[in-house]
Amino acid sequence: MGKFVLSALVENKFGVLARVAGLFSARGFNIDSLAVGETEDVTVSRMTIVVDADERTLEQVKKQLNKLIDVIRVQDLTGGRYVDRELIMIKVKAENTNIREKIVQIVDSTGAEIIDVAKKSVIVEETGDEHKIKALVELLRPYGIIEIARTGKIALQSETNGK
Amino acid sequence: MGKFVLSALVENKFGVLARVAGLFSARGFNIDSLAVGETEDVTVSRMTIVVDADERTLEQVKKQLNKLIDVIRVQDLTGGRYVDRELIMIKVKAENTNIREKIVQIVDSTGAEIIDVAKKSVIVEETGDEHKIKALVELLRPYGIIEIARTGKIALQSETNGK
Repeated sequence: MGKFVLSALVENKFGVLARVAGLFSARGFNIDSLAVGETEDVTVSRMTIVVDADERTLEQVKKQLNKLIDVIRVQDLTGGRYVDRELIMIKVKAENTNIREKIVQIVDSTGAEIIDVAKKSVIVEETGDEHKIKALVELLRPYGIIEIARTGKIALQSETNGK
Repeated sequence: MGKFVLSALVENKFGVLARVAGLFSARGFNIDSLAVGETEDVTVSRMTIVVDADERTLEQVKKQLNKLIDVIRVQDLTGGRYVDRELIMIKVKAENTNIREKIVQIVDSTGAEIIDVAKKSVIVEETGDEHKIKALVELLRPYGIIEIARTGKIALQSETNGK
């Protein structure tokens, strides 16, 4: 068992998301995250799928994905080098100046950013790999997390081995 | 017609994504983007859905979403104040030092970041609202975009009106 990162180019039609999600759901494949967004070509979207599976299940997943008519290409990034990022926004309690200053210190030391300041709360934004984001959540948790919005992981193959 | 931003708290089961995507697909609702990620409570995920619709269609969408058994709460952020962000990674051609320097200038002037450097390409990352991200893509396009991975929009209600 392990985590695998698949990147699929698909036709940019909303039904594709329903079909891909349905495929995983119907077969009981265990998905960690799925992120989808437009590419440079507006008719094509890229889905990044993180799946917790063994090699045999993963081969099934890839085969099933490739069978879907609107799937253009499936790339398994797991073996090689890739960069991955995710994005989080955290609304955290900040009811006085003292607490606000402590949150500013955490934000400054982690490379996060405060993007909204209200009387009793602030919204913190961070981009990073999942470890960096988990660390930020743990640092902010003691102050009281009100709401979280986050994306799934996106990934691109790294070319640092010479290409 | 207009863009509406919905934020839905749902049970963190993969079948929910299939059902929500299927609901939109079956009724021909026009989705701009959908992003899903875990919240502070690991059993609950937040979906941010941007839909291009008229008021009447939007009411239908909300009603249908609320009918789904695993949907906990649907919030329409459109009327009030909210902050929204998306994340993009762009692999762009950079075949010599001269071009690389020009890309560094663009990156520095836009608040983006270079997160991977190879012999003939770099990967640029940026977080922002859709206008900021569109502007970066336009600035990098002349150099030759190889690949793009991006998330959908995530959003949280702003409390800057006093709460």
